[in-house]
Amino acid sequence: MGIVVQKFGGTSVGSVERIQNVAKRVIAEKDRGKDVVVVVSAMGKTTDQLVSLAHEISKKPSKREMDMLLTTGEQVTISLLSMALQEQGYETVSFTGWQAGIMTEPVHGNARITKIITDRLEQELKQGKIVIVAGFQGMTESGEITTLGRGGSDTTAVALAAALKAEKCDIYTDVTGVFTTDPRYVKGARKLEAISYDEMLELANLGAGVLHPRAVEFAKNYNVLLEVRSSMEMERGTIVEEETYMEQNLVVRGIAFEDQVTRVSVCGLPNSIHTLSTIFSTLAEHGINVDIIIQSTSKEELTSISFSIKTEDLDETLKVLKQHQNQLQFEKIEYEKNLAKVSIVGSGMISNPGVAAQMFNELADHGILIKMVSTSEIKVSVVVDEDKMVEAVEVLHEAFNLSKQEEVVK
Amino acid sequence: MGIVVQKFGGTSVGSVERIQNVAKRVIAEKDRGKDVVVVVSAMGKTTDQLVSLAHEISKKPSKREMDMLLTTGEQVTISLLSMALQEQGYETVSFTGWQAGIMTEPVHGNARITKIITDRLEQELKQGKIVIVAGFQGMTESGEITTLGRGGSDTTAVALAAALKAEKCDIYTDVTGVFTTDPRYVKGARKLEAISYDEMLELANLGAGVLHPRAVEFAKNYNVLLEVRSSMEMERGTIVEEETYMEQNLVVRGIAFEDQVTRVSVCGLPNSIHTLSTIFSTLAEHGINVDIIIQSTSKEELTSISFSIKTEDLDETLKVLKQHQNQLQFEKIEYEKNLAKVSIVGSGMISNPGVAAQMFNELADHGILIKMVSTSEIKVSVVVDEDKMVEAVEVLHEAFNLSKQEEVVK
Repeated sequence: MGIVVQKFGGTSVGSVERIQNVAKRVIAEKDRGKDVVVVVSAMGKTTDQLVSLAHEISKKPSKREMDMLLTTGEQVTISLLSMALQEQGYETVSFTGWQAGIMTEPVHGNARITKIITDRLEQELKQGKIVIVAGFQGMTESGEITTLGRGGSDTTAVALAAALKAEKCDIYTDVTGVFTTDPRYVKGARKLEAISYDEMLELANLGAGVLHPRAVEFAKNYNVLLEVRSSMEMERGTIVEEETYMEQNLVVRGIAFEDQVTRVSVCGLPNSIHTLSTIFSTLAEHGINVDIIIQSTSKEELTSISFSIKTEDLDETLKVLKQHQNQLQFEKIEYEKNLAKVSIVGSGMISNPGVAAQMFNELADHGILIKMVSTSEIKVSVVVDEDKMVEAVEVLHEAFNLSKQEEVVK
Repeated sequence: MGIVVQKFGGTSVGSVERIQNVAKRVIAEKDRGKDVVVVVSAMGKTTDQLVSLAHEISKKPSKREMDMLLTTGEQVTISLLSMALQEQGYETVSFTGWQAGIMTEPVHGNARITKIITDRLEQELKQGKIVIVAGFQGMTESGEITTLGRGGSDTTAVALAAALKAEKCDIYTDVTGVFTTDPRYVKGARKLEAISYDEMLELANLGAGVLHPRAVEFAKNYNVLLEVRSSMEMERGTIVEEETYMEQNLVVRGIAFEDQVTRVSVCGLPNSIHTLSTIFSTLAEHGINVDIIIQSTSKEELTSISFSIKTEDLDETLKVLKQHQNQLQFEKIEYEKNLAKVSIVGSGMISNPGVAAQMFNELADHGILIKMVSTSEIKVSVVVDEDKMVEAVEVLHEAFNLSKQEEVVK
């Protein structure tokens, strides 16, 4: 009998009523004759509440104790979901991360799963029980409780699916699937039937962060078939798998975008081999995430480096750079706020070299100025003025035929 | 270096501020040069809130899942207390029940501790860390999470003190110690300096259930020195130990009382050898707690049995007895509500045969009618009218010199 892993996030289990609703989705799968493993997150705002409780006590609580604190959130959910299913006459058993055999490296706050000891889970499944596992958490070899960091519950679900050789891993969320672009901004946004792991990775910030990149990578590495679907609606979601359906005339699968981008340029830098690494390791040490990086190579003595950051990190970035001015030996810093990043994503791009050019043309035709460009094999990103962001997305969504119904050809 | 175990109940850790206050008490002990192990309960009303959450889902949730749910309460407290202590610059480590090596029998909701594997705790103490342990919880041999039932955190503390051969186990609570009687009712009520385990057991319901009988029994069996004291005030509490100080002229150590008592008499029963056991096993099967039992032996064919119950159990008691009328063959049931039980307790009674008589005389002199009597080696209980309860306690408190300052003679 096939195993299906179902994952429900915090919003889906945010109240007793919603937990009862989740129970129905679990029962539906069980009644179809599947062995079901359910992975759940903490209820709604529980994690946030626990974090603020900790911050009332300490500005910088130890990561070990934070893990101790936060893991209670999922433990509450597993027991309540288990009760809800038992109330409907189903045999269930709930497990914390350590009980489920989820072993991690000895790191607090952001541990990676090292292995899953599935004996206990398999034994309970064999007895016909629905197994409910607390997401986001694991245990080290020495018996310490750890958490998996952001996207942890998605990762738990995918890792369990891989370890148990499940047929499928269903990620239930508050959207109905993965969209060509964010439907809150673009009317023509359309739900995709299928998408490849790599495309999903590049589109990670579409659909309100529907699936964590780490879980997608895990799924890709272990070839786990994922479906992103709604915990409220019964409709089919979006399949994420390696060999996705080919879609005619669809070299671009989706368009991602984000606002609150700032471009920073460090000018008058010595053109040395260490300049780039020095700047970005300095920023990384201070926890500043740099996105697009552009260096125009030149033979002159001095060079400039531009990069994009989140606007909220600007003050810290300027402070860090100025602190290190002696070391970095730059002349001045320039920056531009109120920018946005727009990216087109699609694995069809690899064999369609004209895609980037088409993107630039479309934007130019609509008078949208491109301030930075970055490309990967399946993605082209441009930075534009923030007030042109939605227009740029709409133009590209139309230009690349994303509103069109997919015509599926295997 | 000596080990001290400190236990703080739910009220003492009911808010961030109170947890910070608890941290001060822990630090005071640590700074005295002790190795400190702290046992804490869930914060304030947490357990009640979790129970009602469960009851929203199921009227009778499985005990296993209730254990899974409720154990999160103490886990939150240990992490917060650990953070509060670290914030003050102390090295600490928190442990759940299973991490602390607290092994229990495979029973949910009310497990007994079978052993404590202290290796990890001793290792951390040796490194100078303050060890914080979640009360009320343990783990079975097969890795199931269990709870210890009522008084569980007291039991955890005493068991740890026994296993670690601690000098002392301090039970911090919301009263300043064990009193001769309930100070909310009797002005002259006085805090005792010391009390024996057996007296403490008999006085268990004094001082707002300050110490659970199960923990006292555990302490008695392993000869753990207890002190019951306030988590708010700095004053000394009450010592509970085997060889307590002898106190002159103090054959009675304290007076316990409870209202809401009902006497039930089953009349016209066949005078057979099985009558008593049949009645009380029937009641026990239905979860009805019977307190005082009186049977006047007689050579006649028919006999009567009287017993006292909590008034809230009356309806159920009558129902159960009537259901079994054919089997028990009684003629009729009589009952009297609005009664109270008053007990005098003291190990000095064993060598003072006149104590019960003195009690009866005092009550008679004040026109208080005794409706039932029960005696043990160190306790005499009488049942009186509820509206005479406080008067009876006051009369006896005065008569047995309980308001007098203790004159300690070793």
